[in-house]
Amino acid sequence: MRLALIGAGRIGQVHAQAIDRHPGVTLAAVADYHAPSAEELAAQYGTKALSVDAIFKNGDIDAVLIASSTSTHADYLEQAAHTGKAILCEKPIALDLARTRDALQVLESHPVTCALGFNRRHDPQFAALKQAVASGRIGELETLTIISRDPAPPPAEYVGASGGLFRDMMIHDFDMARWLLDEPITHVQATGSCLIDQAIGKAGDVDTAMVILTTASGRLCHINNSRRACYGYDQRIEAFGSAGMLQAQNESETRLRFTGEPGQVEEKPLWFFLERYAEAYSREIGDFVDAWREKRAPLAGAEDGLEALRLAEAAEQSLKEGRRIALDSTH
Amino acid sequence: MRLALIGAGRIGQVHAQAIDRHPGVTLAAVADYHAPSAEELAAQYGTKALSVDAIFKNGDIDAVLIASSTSTHADYLEQAAHTGKAILCEKPIALDLARTRDALQVLESHPVTCALGFNRRHDPQFAALKQAVASGRIGELETLTIISRDPAPPPAEYVGASGGLFRDMMIHDFDMARWLLDEPITHVQATGSCLIDQAIGKAGDVDTAMVILTTASGRLCHINNSRRACYGYDQRIEAFGSAGMLQAQNESETRLRFTGEPGQVEEKPLWFFLERYAEAYSREIGDFVDAWREKRAPLAGAEDGLEALRLAEAAEQSLKEGRRIALDSTH
Amino acid sequence: MRLALIGAGRIGQVHAQAIDRHPGVTLAAVADYHAPSAEELAAQYGTKALSVDAIFKNGDIDAVLIASSTSTHADYLEQAAHTGKAILCEKPIALDLARTRDALQVLESHPVTCALGFNRRHDPQFAALKQAVASGRIGELETLTIISRDPAPPPAEYVGASGGLFRDMMIHDFDMARWLLDEPITHVQATGSCLIDQAIGKAGDVDTAMVILTTASGRLCHINNSRRACYGYDQRIEAFGSAGMLQAQNESETRLRFTGEPGQVEEKPLWFFLERYAEAYSREIGDFVDAWREKRAPLAGAEDGLEALRLAEAAEQSLKEGRRIALDSTH
Amino acid sequence: MRLALIGAGRIGQVHAQAIDRHPGVTLAAVADYHAPSAEELAAQYGTKALSVDAIFKNGDIDAVLIASSTSTHADYLEQAAHTGKAILCEKPIALDLARTRDALQVLESHPVTCALGFNRRHDPQFAALKQAVASGRIGELETLTIISRDPAPPPAEYVGASGGLFRDMMIHDFDMARWLLDEPITHVQATGSCLIDQAIGKAGDVDTAMVILTTASGRLCHINNSRRACYGYDQRIEAFGSAGMLQAQNESETRLRFTGEPGQVEEKPLWFFLERYAEAYSREIGDFVDAWREKRAPLAGAEDGLEALRLAEAAEQSLKEGRRIALDSTH
Repeated sequence: MRLALIGAGRIGQVHAQAIDRHPGVTLAAVADYHAPSAEELAAQYGTKALSVDAIFKNGDIDAVLIASSTSTHADYLEQAAHTGKAILCEKPIALDLARTRDALQVLESHPVTCALGFNRRHDPQFAALKQAVASGRIGELETLTIISRDPAPPPAEYVGASGGLFRDMMIHDFDMARWLLDEPITHVQATGSCLIDQAIGKAGDVDTAMVILTTASGRLCHINNSRRACYGYDQRIEAFGSAGMLQAQNESETRLRFTGEPGQVEEKPLWFFLERYAEAYSREIGDFVDAWREKRAPLAGAEDGLEALRLAEAAEQSLKEGRRIALDSTH
Repeated sequence: MRLALIGAGRIGQVHAQAIDRHPGVTLAAVADYHAPSAEELAAQYGTKALSVDAIFKNGDIDAVLIASSTSTHADYLEQAAHTGKAILCEKPIALDLARTRDALQVLESHPVTCALGFNRRHDPQFAALKQAVASGRIGELETLTIISRDPAPPPAEYVGASGGLFRDMMIHDFDMARWLLDEPITHVQATGSCLIDQAIGKAGDVDTAMVILTTASGRLCHINNSRRACYGYDQRIEAFGSAGMLQAQNESETRLRFTGEPGQVEEKPLWFFLERYAEAYSREIGDFVDAWREKRAPLAGAEDGLEALRLAEAAEQSLKEGRRIALDSTH
Repeated sequence: MRLALIGAGRIGQVHAQAIDRHPGVTLAAVADYHAPSAEELAAQYGTKALSVDAIFKNGDIDAVLIASSTSTHADYLEQAAHTGKAILCEKPIALDLARTRDALQVLESHPVTCALGFNRRHDPQFAALKQAVASGRIGELETLTIISRDPAPPPAEYVGASGGLFRDMMIHDFDMARWLLDEPITHVQATGSCLIDQAIGKAGDVDTAMVILTTASGRLCHINNSRRACYGYDQRIEAFGSAGMLQAQNESETRLRFTGEPGQVEEKPLWFFLERYAEAYSREIGDFVDAWREKRAPLAGAEDGLEALRLAEAAEQSLKEGRRIALDSTH
Repeated sequence: MRLALIGAGRIGQVHAQAIDRHPGVTLAAVADYHAPSAEELAAQYGTKALSVDAIFKNGDIDAVLIASSTSTHADYLEQAAHTGKAILCEKPIALDLARTRDALQVLESHPVTCALGFNRRHDPQFAALKQAVASGRIGELETLTIISRDPAPPPAEYVGASGGLFRDMMIHDFDMARWLLDEPITHVQATGSCLIDQAIGKAGDVDTAMVILTTASGRLCHINNSRRACYGYDQRIEAFGSAGMLQAQNESETRLRFTGEPGQVEEKPLWFFLERYAEAYSREIGDFVDAWREKRAPLAGAEDGLEALRLAEAAEQSLKEGRRIALDSTH
């Protein structure tokens, strides 16, 4: 696969490395609205910088990886669909449902392989948990608990443009919930507080939130978000069922243990999402290439982006209105 | 302290043993509506069986431990107050708020030492967690997660008379939440499902539930209940704050670890609440005796029973009405 | 059983408490060469102080617990045998083999129930490990690793009188090794250093030691001793076999875990042997009483004391001579 | 660096992948006594197959990685030194001391960068342990315990040619001991048994062994080897000192935990050394390239191979003679 990367920022650089290591993909070009960034990254991996237009016009390019700023995702996704290129798009497609639905319609009329960057589905530990649940290891799944805490809050100005905690941060957890619950989510209850940075509250957002989801058969799911965990990136999932419980635990750099004056001490969880999900980013590229070759759906697609966004909107509404929001199943 | 035990059933027997081991308490008498049970237990500990009336009339008895059936708690508590005896009463005082408030009024007009059997406050691990939070080890407390799962569901007929999951089971977690959050709880959101035993659902109750509590300053607390955990009694608490996290973990019989074909295996959590909270029951007696001697309030009192019940009622209402319930602070 | 306690020091006090809690034993008397200590302890448990002579002459006393200083053990043991009293004797019987063998001969000609205070055999976790090995959980046992480190070294003057590390400290590990290896030990190799306190070295002893034992069938056992572990009493055993491995881990006060700046921190191991082996001391009394009643051998007997001492002497010889010492099986 | 790989077998393939991923190294050629294997591996990484002779004559090749059969190591190492090529040589240089010393003399007279494949020094966890010890985290290092068990024994015929457990398997542990003890080892005591496969015993070797090393200052080190651990590759190190203890623990595929009927179950240790030390092999290449560029000594050099072999020989002698062997410091 000849793949062009749109976006040479931090997340684009992560993808560039994963592409470089994958034997089945060639990094065909890099684009960025800031041309020198594209050139630098292209040089680093021995490829060329192109404009976005040039990429879409280039018949030798099979696929694009959209890692530019959120506001451009839907447009680029539609252009890729129109030009018949496979798509790996960073989440979200857009911050509102209407724009997202438009993009999905374009994909429907111009079908191409389209993967969405819900990287956590590719994490080895979460994937093993998913597989164990699917294989019946815990019998009937009954409850799910997702704890997801960032090491440090973003600047308040970012928060304003991000769409808020539910759309920007918990969106990943909504996707994990949908993926693991494996049946329609019917109700959402949410609450939130601003406990970490008052500027976030002034920007109209919360920095600490709890949500409960209910599914069609009555499964319950709790999501627990905080914008700051002083000990690092806290990413855990607990699936409880009739025959047992599965717990995905935090990863640390090594398993070295010190015992001394302060007690029995193991390392802190990895601090940064790029380290924590390094393997996930690598597997995400692999799944995308395989899906494209095998003409099958990737592990996460555009529809999953729409559904996670609907949950985020319902959570926001629940927070505001103080009531359980029913999700229309005929959206 | 000369203490009479009212109720010679399972929980009464647990208390009898704890009393026997405490150097500062003498088991002065045992009563039970089923006289042979009282006689048997009394004989076992070298004391006598008496009727409840005889106990209340006996001027040599300093205190009563009320471990009879729930419907008798409030009456016995009031009789004890009227006769000037110190009280250790199993929770709940009553299944409804009105009866509980009446009992509290009697206590107000006839003040005696009155402890309520919220045994978990006396658990060494939870007590250590409470103390660590209080000492600022995790900075400002922000969120609390309480996971509480029974090993096996009660018979459906019991469920009917129990007042339901929120009053009967989650009541302990509401008390832990109040104790650890350490400020007024202002809002309750609840949801629940019947996933384990359909008979429980037919009896009008749920067997799986999730609740979110909010406090005056915006702290959030999640409570997660299930009536059945195939691996044993699952009792965990996670307190998260600005400077770290504290996790109370399950206890097992020994810490022996086996590594072999199935993996690295540690023992299951203790199965039964009597084993899990054996030390807590013992400390509960100790706290009661000390409170009585020192004329101070015990670790959990009658008011705590009322407050936990208010939360249970609010949770039930939230489950029914699908909305966040505000707790009146001027009850 | 009417049991008299000889020795009112630290270890005597531990036993007094365990006796007091056991429903089948009455503390009939306390003796100590320092009479006021005996009186104080006797008063604390509502019994009387007697001289050692008076105890041995008293026909109402069924048994003696010998917890006096080491140099008196063998004499009291023999007197008890001569007067037909059951014996629970703190280890060692004597510091040299000849005196120990004499005492065993008296026991042979005057058979009474005689238990030796190898308390670790009664530890719940080690007992569970023993049972799991016996039940074949790890298949054929092949190697054993015993790590045993004291929290702090004794004063150097104590070391001189103690018989040295192998006789005083590792004696417990030799007994665990014999108990778990469950077949004749044929060879001993030992080495040791003085790394912690130079005064110990000047007193002619080591404070850090490693030993390898070999059994008749070729099983290997490593024992690892240190007189000081700054983090507490380090007591671990690893049994490795054809079908897996069992690891007895350190115990801590609670299982509370803190995660924060320094990492993921669990509590230190318990510091003091009395806390670590509190339950073991209690079970030791129980086993002694049961053995006496059922006229069976207790879990550890006088012969076990002799055998452990032979290993200690062989280790000392190996350390001095720099060679593997073969144990004569026809001692 | 233009690097040629000599040896296209299993370990050669591991190195080929690590070379391929390192941005600073080009795999210039592959050689193997079985030419088709060299061609296949060369094709896989887009390079060419050459004879060993051609490699040594090729002036464009900077370095060789010797991963051919043990008996060829010393010859190739000498040829590389004579032709001025940097060397990364799989351990051991040779199975006997004399041949090893000859090779070292050639290196002395023809100095090139020469790294020896003691891969464990490059393992992130062991490296973190080494660094923590060096930084004084446990104060003065006093004892070291190295547990090293293979998942399954090699065929008995391999054992015969391998030089025996001490030279073939424990050699890695001797190197770790030297590296971590960080001072001259003065004495070796060893014992061993054949408990796993009688054919190994018939071939004159042991399959289970325990060793104790003593250093100049009195530090003690225990090494514990077994040729078979049914649960996987067991690789642990415990460093104990005056201020605490460090434990390197086994690694597993993920940290997913299941709790159910059998208990609380974590995954088995990784089964195979290639998985367990994948990162170590990668870092080993990195260190080699850096050492060559910076003209510094690599983390493990030829001298380390000689020293580990001396320990293996001493252990073998100790096993045979039943005594502690003093190591001549003026070898």
